[in-house]
Amino acid sequence: MKTALSALGRRTAPPPISWLMQTALARPQLISLAAGFTDNATLPVDFSRKLLNEILRSPPTGRPALQYGTTAGEEPLRRLTASHLQKLDGGHDSAHAPERTIITGGSQQFLYLTLEALCDEGDLVLVEDPTYFVFLGILQSRGLKARGVKLARDGIDLAHLEKILTQLKKSGQLPRVKALYLVTYFQNPTGATTTLAKKRAALKLLKKFERAAGHPIYLLEDAAYRELRFDQGADVPTALTLSGAKHRVIYAGTYSKPFATGVRVGFGILPEPVYSAVLRLKGNHDFGTANLLQHLLARALASGIYDRQVALGRKNYARKATVMKRAMTEHFPANLEIWEAGGGLYFWVRLPRGISAGVDSKIFRAALKHDVLYVPGELCYATDPSRRRPVGEMRLSFGSASAADIRAGIRRLGAVLRKFI
Amino acid sequence: MKTALSALGRRTAPPPISWLMQTALARPQLISLAAGFTDNATLPVDFSRKLLNEILRSPPTGRPALQYGTTAGEEPLRRLTASHLQKLDGGHDSAHAPERTIITGGSQQFLYLTLEALCDEGDLVLVEDPTYFVFLGILQSRGLKARGVKLARDGIDLAHLEKILTQLKKSGQLPRVKALYLVTYFQNPTGATTTLAKKRAALKLLKKFERAAGHPIYLLEDAAYRELRFDQGADVPTALTLSGAKHRVIYAGTYSKPFATGVRVGFGILPEPVYSAVLRLKGNHDFGTANLLQHLLARALASGIYDRQVALGRKNYARKATVMKRAMTEHFPANLEIWEAGGGLYFWVRLPRGISAGVDSKIFRAALKHDVLYVPGELCYATDPSRRRPVGEMRLSFGSASAADIRAGIRRLGAVLRKFI
Repeated sequence: MKTALSALGRRTAPPPISWLMQTALARPQLISLAAGFTDNATLPVDFSRKLLNEILRSPPTGRPALQYGTTAGEEPLRRLTASHLQKLDGGHDSAHAPERTIITGGSQQFLYLTLEALCDEGDLVLVEDPTYFVFLGILQSRGLKARGVKLARDGIDLAHLEKILTQLKKSGQLPRVKALYLVTYFQNPTGATTTLAKKRAALKLLKKFERAAGHPIYLLEDAAYRELRFDQGADVPTALTLSGAKHRVIYAGTYSKPFATGVRVGFGILPEPVYSAVLRLKGNHDFGTANLLQHLLARALASGIYDRQVALGRKNYARKATVMKRAMTEHFPANLEIWEAGGGLYFWVRLPRGISAGVDSKIFRAALKHDVLYVPGELCYATDPSRRRPVGEMRLSFGSASAADIRAGIRRLGAVLRKFI
Repeated sequence: MKTALSALGRRTAPPPISWLMQTALARPQLISLAAGFTDNATLPVDFSRKLLNEILRSPPTGRPALQYGTTAGEEPLRRLTASHLQKLDGGHDSAHAPERTIITGGSQQFLYLTLEALCDEGDLVLVEDPTYFVFLGILQSRGLKARGVKLARDGIDLAHLEKILTQLKKSGQLPRVKALYLVTYFQNPTGATTTLAKKRAALKLLKKFERAAGHPIYLLEDAAYRELRFDQGADVPTALTLSGAKHRVIYAGTYSKPFATGVRVGFGILPEPVYSAVLRLKGNHDFGTANLLQHLLARALASGIYDRQVALGRKNYARKATVMKRAMTEHFPANLEIWEAGGGLYFWVRLPRGISAGVDSKIFRAALKHDVLYVPGELCYATDPSRRRPVGEMRLSFGSASAADIRAGIRRLGAVLRKFI
């Protein structure tokens, strides 16, 4: 007897991180520099207790938090989200509309809903090369194709983007292109941050090819790591601040990573008609994210506690990034290319030409044997027949490991690298 | 320029309740007997505060609740779910395995994931006639077809189910049939509860037609209202207790309705290979439901607070159901058929033959004019070309309205009905 599963159900591959996580669980001595988890020690235990006690102190504030809400999400949280973004964007406000904002179960759910609303099987999404691997998982599952756009430390290679769009136009595939997906701040996996000039140029390029596509091509900006910035200097404004953004920019944001990953609340801001389509889909998925979490975050934002927690996280990640950087300087061979992030959770390390750090490499196996785990960079590259998948890179996370474990892990990994390089 | 939306994005209709809700919001005097919201006054404000204070009292218990978890959900909650079900099912345990349980954002998300894993566009799902309208929304959105099986007060009409399966076999459509969806306890919208004998017979019938289908046909049991039972008598065991359930029964449960709808946590128990497929899809949807909510429910279950809250809810809904029943006896014409529920949130009222209570009916418009809202029963019927969609029914909810509003609402509605019947 055959299986009753749908094509989607049969096709969907297990996430590449699941075996990494199983590997980690099976070796309790192992130091994981692979997990994208956030720091445990700075999680807002006291802040959350305080805020939840305020909410649940009495029925007038407690009951609305324990009742169903609306599919789009609580109006106060959507309003606070708009003003929070406006503040981060230095006063720009044109596209930060609460009425085009939807609150979701993390920004991951928002990305899923957006791809569901935009893409049919066989459609094409342009992505950074490399990019966030769970996004690639959605593409794989839904039968979508990806084209990778070369990535530099300040964002995508615009000439390459134009070349790809031109090729797609020539081959008649442009009507299948629905969006360009950019992780614009301290990108997962490379730590790269896209400049505003590049966002502007990319949006302009997409616009230029729209006539040939026959429909809008959206710039899907994923700002998941935006608030994990180390220095206190100026933030890069989002693509929402650009002219025309109101009609072409889809913005994915999250409160999970900057506040607490156990309080899974993300959000999206979208132009019509995508907003209405996503809202209807969300109605079928779960008709609204848990109200208790939304009330918790709204109160954190309104009280300033959110900002205090973000400041705490930044200082902590900056410190741990420094620990990892120093350890790499001490223990790694000198001839590696290291992309130093100004925020986020990751360093990106490129080995000398011809040496593999991939899933099947000697280096990855030796690292495991010496009880240290990293994410092989190859897992972050889309299946794209137009280039070979690079294997000489590693994503190293300082997010969840302690400073001592970061030092020990880098020392172990350094010993392995020195042996093979 | 065309829209860039996918077929799914274009096709997905707004939920029928959205205009009902907007209607309610636009008329502040209106008494809504339409909303499926739970009772506000008995929401567990104090219980939740107490439990969250225990969780967030110190870092060892607080941090895991504020950190990412696993895609399947917290192991303690899955274990507690299995033992809770086993207790409800009077000791039967064969199919209540924590390792085939997934924790989801309400049972709604579980239903969505299950249909995604099982059904391709054009596939067929057998449903009760009438059934839960958000489930029908998922079918509509995903391009799936429904066939309605006649429903009696003790569950579906088995002869009708057999007739439908036989017809589908003859017409060669059986390979498109993936599941029979039953809301088995205090059904939404009718309040009907399916006997164990009917569940057993339905499972047997599905099995009988599997060879012709060429694949398993699953019994998808939705037990969302199970714990909202009025009397303290024996519960009906789930289909999970039946022989063969381990391979053919998919069970959707929830903690939202019995505990707090703002704490959106549901769960599903499934056979392989559907379990693995759903888990992979969940990995792409959101890679796990918010841990804080899961820890809250695990602690509620383990401490007995969950059972105390359920008992409170039952007593309260039983009381409000009695209020509604008495008011209907007093104010409604005598010649109506009223399905009295032994639990849940709804009464189902059938008007005399030939009289419509549908969306476009005089009765519905007059009721609105007199500031009382109900759910026209027709919204709960699948699009099924094999029968005409009934319009002579109403779903009346005593879930969220106060006792005074229930009395006033039924009085208003009674005046309208007396005028037209």
